[in-house]
Amino acid sequence: MNGAESLVRTLHGAGVSVCFANPGTSEMQFVDALDRTGSMRCILGLFEGVVTGAADGYARMAKVPAVTLLHLAPGFANGAANVHNAKKARTPMINLVGDHATYHLKYNAPLTADLEGAVAPFSDWVRTATTAETIGRDGAEAVAAAMSGPGRIATLLAPSDTGWNEGGVVAAPVEPEPLAAYDPAALDAAIAMLESGEPTLIYFSGAALEDPALTGLLSAIADKTGAKLLSPTSNRRIERGAGRPRVDKLFYAVDLALEQLRPYRNVILIGAPEPVAFFAYPDKPSVLLPEAARRLTLATSEEDGVAAIRALADRLGVSRPVIVDAPRPIPPKAGSITYEALAAAVAAALPEGAIVADEGITVGRGIYAATTGSAPMSWIAITGGSIGIGPPLATGAAVACPDRPVVALQADGSSMYTIQALWTQARENLNVTTVIFANRSYEVLKQELYKVGANPGRGALDMLEIDRPALDFVALARGMGVPAKRVEDAAELCRTIADATKEPGPFLIEAMVDD
Amino acid sequence: MNGAESLVRTLHGAGVSVCFANPGTSEMQFVDALDRTGSMRCILGLFEGVVTGAADGYARMAKVPAVTLLHLAPGFANGAANVHNAKKARTPMINLVGDHATYHLKYNAPLTADLEGAVAPFSDWVRTATTAETIGRDGAEAVAAAMSGPGRIATLLAPSDTGWNEGGVVAAPVEPEPLAAYDPAALDAAIAMLESGEPTLIYFSGAALEDPALTGLLSAIADKTGAKLLSPTSNRRIERGAGRPRVDKLFYAVDLALEQLRPYRNVILIGAPEPVAFFAYPDKPSVLLPEAARRLTLATSEEDGVAAIRALADRLGVSRPVIVDAPRPIPPKAGSITYEALAAAVAAALPEGAIVADEGITVGRGIYAATTGSAPMSWIAITGGSIGIGPPLATGAAVACPDRPVVALQADGSSMYTIQALWTQARENLNVTTVIFANRSYEVLKQELYKVGANPGRGALDMLEIDRPALDFVALARGMGVPAKRVEDAAELCRTIADATKEPGPFLIEAMVDD
Repeated sequence: MNGAESLVRTLHGAGVSVCFANPGTSEMQFVDALDRTGSMRCILGLFEGVVTGAADGYARMAKVPAVTLLHLAPGFANGAANVHNAKKARTPMINLVGDHATYHLKYNAPLTADLEGAVAPFSDWVRTATTAETIGRDGAEAVAAAMSGPGRIATLLAPSDTGWNEGGVVAAPVEPEPLAAYDPAALDAAIAMLESGEPTLIYFSGAALEDPALTGLLSAIADKTGAKLLSPTSNRRIERGAGRPRVDKLFYAVDLALEQLRPYRNVILIGAPEPVAFFAYPDKPSVLLPEAARRLTLATSEEDGVAAIRALADRLGVSRPVIVDAPRPIPPKAGSITYEALAAAVAAALPEGAIVADEGITVGRGIYAATTGSAPMSWIAITGGSIGIGPPLATGAAVACPDRPVVALQADGSSMYTIQALWTQARENLNVTTVIFANRSYEVLKQELYKVGANPGRGALDMLEIDRPALDFVALARGMGVPAKRVEDAAELCRTIADATKEPGPFLIEAMVDD
Repeated sequence: MNGAESLVRTLHGAGVSVCFANPGTSEMQFVDALDRTGSMRCILGLFEGVVTGAADGYARMAKVPAVTLLHLAPGFANGAANVHNAKKARTPMINLVGDHATYHLKYNAPLTADLEGAVAPFSDWVRTATTAETIGRDGAEAVAAAMSGPGRIATLLAPSDTGWNEGGVVAAPVEPEPLAAYDPAALDAAIAMLESGEPTLIYFSGAALEDPALTGLLSAIADKTGAKLLSPTSNRRIERGAGRPRVDKLFYAVDLALEQLRPYRNVILIGAPEPVAFFAYPDKPSVLLPEAARRLTLATSEEDGVAAIRALADRLGVSRPVIVDAPRPIPPKAGSITYEALAAAVAAALPEGAIVADEGITVGRGIYAATTGSAPMSWIAITGGSIGIGPPLATGAAVACPDRPVVALQADGSSMYTIQALWTQARENLNVTTVIFANRSYEVLKQELYKVGANPGRGALDMLEIDRPALDFVALARGMGVPAKRVEDAAELCRTIADATKEPGPFLIEAMVDD
């Protein structure tokens, strides 16, 4: 057995069953091994950013990592932005990056670059395989690294001869490192804060958001103690919707976030760092909490926040979730697609069990609140701030959950970073309904331009408009084999989303937003 | 004046007049300064790979660098593959990458990453600006670094407060480092080789390919001494065509390259390293020259190869170029677009003064030889092996040379990495005629799969087919505002290319290749 086959068999034995791939010459032995062993589902992306973003979406829903197959330093770099998003989400991911044969590197062929250097800033764990005999073991350790703690980026660099040489050994799975224990002293301090009668915030993220039983415990704690609950602007996944505890998020805009956090004297952090501004701006603070607020880290994201929440509930003697019924969304009336009508259309159209992949950016910002009373759903969103995650994230989620409809809420500007994902959706016949918010502008950046104190001229604003020429998303989708429709009426938008989610296969809706 | 304005004015004072941009929040003060100073042409790309590839194409033709404007580590990473190609081409390029404000970095906001680490593997020169007072000087040194030697990648990291703080100082241009002198002893040795009567090869690249007067001197040297001339498979730019000296290139395929190099006992290297295989394969050598061949480096790419060629010609007493007239290409007859007919169609259609941007990969491999007798042209091609350079390279070349038609020879698979460049072509009304070679397959990878010794099954081959669904490039082009046409007949293809190059603005031809 060659090294490539031993690696593929090892990964499969450790629970990895999907490979998102954009291979090149230096990965042909892995393509061959994937085919011969027949052990994994292989999904092709036309661009590496699709591959890595899909691996992220897959793992967020499947809770096991996929493996990506990438080609040398430039191939990894093409996928690095979405690896960055996955790293910030703490999504488990294994990247298998081919390199030149060990003996070929010294010749500095055109595709040679510092591969270890290129992957390091975006990875939590990096290993370069050295022989066919040991690459299986490297693979087992990569899976363990990816599954360790809250989820990690493990990148295995594989010189081509470690794949094609004979002598491969299939390695047994390696146990991942569990989350560290939270500090019991912090638990006492948290109880004291919660019982102090002072305005107290529980600021939480991570696994607690992915299980309604845990957000339910938090809702019970809040109800009993008068504390408030809040989650970061960006999270790996939130289970939410009608009949589930409500999860509010920190506002993105600094002024709004400051207002939101101003009331609190005590802040208990569980699985989330202290909230900070997404960007710095002249004359605005980086730190969002009031200076006088006492901060208490009950569990970092590397510690067992779920156990901490259970212990808190136990100490406070609560167990029943408190669910405030949000009104069932009402479909919008016929008329132009204002931001409000857009939110109403999505909220009313979402079917039971939908997965929402959110890269709505500015236009979509109202949709999260509007969908509080929508049918129960999984909400996955951009996490590391690097736009271009939406179409791949939806793609990967649909691979993980073939029986659930995926609705991709997608700003137009950011969609163009990884629009190639539509082709993979067509190829795999994935039930993804992409709603493009066509406002023909980098709207978020126009707002940001004013925030840095600029009094922008036409030239500066022109750099943030994408209406010349207008992008025709219906044509783009059809060009990649995805049926599509342009919609200008809010009521029709609602019906079209609902209908598309019921049909198998992908569909794209270009919603002409009236801003 | 703030730091951003001082930087923009410094860059402009040093000769930089074009900015290819895909900015984000941390670059808004630079967008504002570019607008207010009105000193540069700003060209927007929808994706960073477009921006960096266009900067490469621009500088190859303009012979001065453009500046790119990119957003943090993920934004740079999105553009890194084409920075890699530019680095291997030794194209001068300045990357201005925004970062979080200096005081904001420690908060580890979502977009925070090791930016210096991310840019280092793809840059020759890296500097992080620290204050508004000094960023002007940093900019002047970045331009000098980019213009030093044969051309370099200079990456300046700009925390946002170094841009928006007051106190900016416009810096005077800094003198770039010239090329090093070649070794005069090597000149004597080269003369001895050339006069030895033994089979001798002059293997050259770099500036000598960009001036027909220099390839003319080399042709005279070869004619007088019986030496042969050859250039690498990939080069920054070649000036060629009817009435100019013929430039042959090393074959990409290892077996063919070995055959091509087998005759030589002496090899004189000028501006090019010893030829090596693009990739390693089981049971094929990495080194392509015969073991017994004597290698002589007359000038490395860091040394003055042009002076070396002039000195050689002087010592040998030659000056008149030897031009072997290649036959004027004959347009193909009506019929299906075979590889041969494709080459004939392109060769006959190319107008005088065309710039050919070549990412034709496997299907296009015959076109270079077929165009030897075409009207005089500039030929620019993928250099670092990282696919996805074609559409941006053509875009940047058209910006540099608005009076010359650009013909982009484009494989279908690789086009999809940076297809967003079409939108920039439409926005800037660039005269780029893109010919997509639609064979609906990663043809090069299928060949590579067999070379690693695989006996591939259907699953492996399926990973290298992109025909399910078929990409509709006419729809994709129209979706980005570029008129387009599908062509299935070779004679019509030739006419359509010729017509499109005569019209202003972009056009795309989907050539349905019969393989």
